[in-house]
Amino acid sequence: MKKIGVVGVGRMGANMARRLKQAGYVVTAVYDSKKEYAVALAKELGAESCDRLARVTELSEVILTVVTDDKAQLSIFMDKKDNLLKKANGRIFINCATVSPEVHVKVQTLAKKSKAQSLEGCMASSINQALAGTLYLMCGGEKSTFEKVKPILNAMSDDGKLLRYIGTAGKAAQVKALVNMVMNINTAGLAEGLGLGAALGLDLKILMEVFSQTGANSRVLQTDGEDMLNRDHACFFSGSHAAKDSGIALGLAKKARRDLPLAKAAYQQYRKMVLKGFGDLDKSGIAELTFPGRGQKPKKAGKKK
Amino acid sequence: MKKIGVVGVGRMGANMARRLKQAGYVVTAVYDSKKEYAVALAKELGAESCDRLARVTELSEVILTVVTDDKAQLSIFMDKKDNLLKKANGRIFINCATVSPEVHVKVQTLAKKSKAQSLEGCMASSINQALAGTLYLMCGGEKSTFEKVKPILNAMSDDGKLLRYIGTAGKAAQVKALVNMVMNINTAGLAEGLGLGAALGLDLKILMEVFSQTGANSRVLQTDGEDMLNRDHACFFSGSHAAKDSGIALGLAKKARRDLPLAKAAYQQYRKMVLKGFGDLDKSGIAELTFPGRGQKPKKAGKKK
Repeated sequence: MKKIGVVGVGRMGANMARRLKQAGYVVTAVYDSKKEYAVALAKELGAESCDRLARVTELSEVILTVVTDDKAQLSIFMDKKDNLLKKANGRIFINCATVSPEVHVKVQTLAKKSKAQSLEGCMASSINQALAGTLYLMCGGEKSTFEKVKPILNAMSDDGKLLRYIGTAGKAAQVKALVNMVMNINTAGLAEGLGLGAALGLDLKILMEVFSQTGANSRVLQTDGEDMLNRDHACFFSGSHAAKDSGIALGLAKKARRDLPLAKAAYQQYRKMVLKGFGDLDKSGIAELTFPGRGQKPKKAGKKK
Repeated sequence: MKKIGVVGVGRMGANMARRLKQAGYVVTAVYDSKKEYAVALAKELGAESCDRLARVTELSEVILTVVTDDKAQLSIFMDKKDNLLKKANGRIFINCATVSPEVHVKVQTLAKKSKAQSLEGCMASSINQALAGTLYLMCGGEKSTFEKVKPILNAMSDDGKLLRYIGTAGKAAQVKALVNMVMNINTAGLAEGLGLGAALGLDLKILMEVFSQTGANSRVLQTDGEDMLNRDHACFFSGSHAAKDSGIALGLAKKARRDLPLAKAAYQQYRKMVLKGFGDLDKSGIAELTFPGRGQKPKKAGKKK
């Protein structure tokens, strides 16, 4: 299976398509609700920029979907006028958006009805890893489907070193929701520590060094700490995505009757980012809520890296 | 200056005394409000177990204090019947307890009046590092005092590689409060992630592996994750200490007019540990609040490692 379609070619989807082309696959079809994204990428990769989802299915054997949220994910499979499941016999869909676990279950059911297969391919990495083919990739669905598309998954996950089969449809999304919930808590907590340090007039470089040497160390200290000091919130993973993912995790917690006060507090902080109009900043922009003298969207923050 | 006194010989203080003896210092005097601790350590190290604080000062050139909290720290320097500042001319006090920044300022003022010097020596490590002499040690006070006791500080901090001069009295305590505030947030957040994972029936070993590979990674994942799964809460750093330190940080935040919702949520969780009678468990015991089917103090949790 060499012919790949990609639906949703924002930062992540576009880089995944680039990676697969580089790994020897033929990207035959791309689609985005923002037509200009699809046109530009199609030109770059020699693919067809499709006007209709059904055309993506027609041109491809395996279709990656990398859309924004539950609604978009359901729409591309269920929209009455146009969807991916028209004449989808034999196609395999790999759904890489971070959506609710139950959406993955629903999509799998719909795909089966159309004699297609679907797999969730949850990514726990960002745009640089997508381009480099070193995504941490967690899959959920039927094991046989997973095995069929394994070469493609390997090409995106450092020869499979970062590939994990997690369980049935929806399970990988649960893991991803937990990853992002914990990451968001750590990021919001770091912003509080550095923000208070700034308010106390401490040397923030030394403070970061001390954090890095102690129980306060974390991955987000390495990825977001400097950016918080420098107000460099060019977007890798936006505040509004953080809010969405923490919200998914809190939905799971509610059903499981777990009370998670830190996850709640983090969710409310990211929601505040969105409400204040900072939602498009990187999640490091949460520091705008905790550092003294901030609270305005910094000028240089919007540009992409 | 070779003659060392140690006041407060719980787990940390005792190991620091052992380390200094191993490094060639003479531990002349030890004191603890729990007399039996002092007697046992004095016997082990060939020191005098003192009945009075003034006797520690009499026998020592440099006195380490490693007490539990603000009240104890102030009491050993101010108690009218007996304190460390009687005939303290020329003595240097290194105060290693995690106490409020203003307590360090107060102690420095009192020491000066008695023609003694004081230094804060905030530790951002735990009992194993104390014994090994590899504490991350942050100092606050007059630079000249710091220089005078540098050989002693070096002996506790991996030949000084982990030694940092932070600023005036109280500044190291501010940094320490922030370190513990962030660490406590990350720990409480991890307990929520793993607890929800357990409730969802996920494979927690895989979940921890995924956390470690992603933005959810943190130092506390490495130090506390397994213990949370195994309910092994043997105490390195207790829940009640975590509550105390987060409380100090929130006090600083209040004065600096910073609103820190995650720090607040973490503080409330550790307070809940204390109120439920879990305060003596390691901070990893916060998982008892988030895992399904827990909430009782586990039987094996109390023993020391």
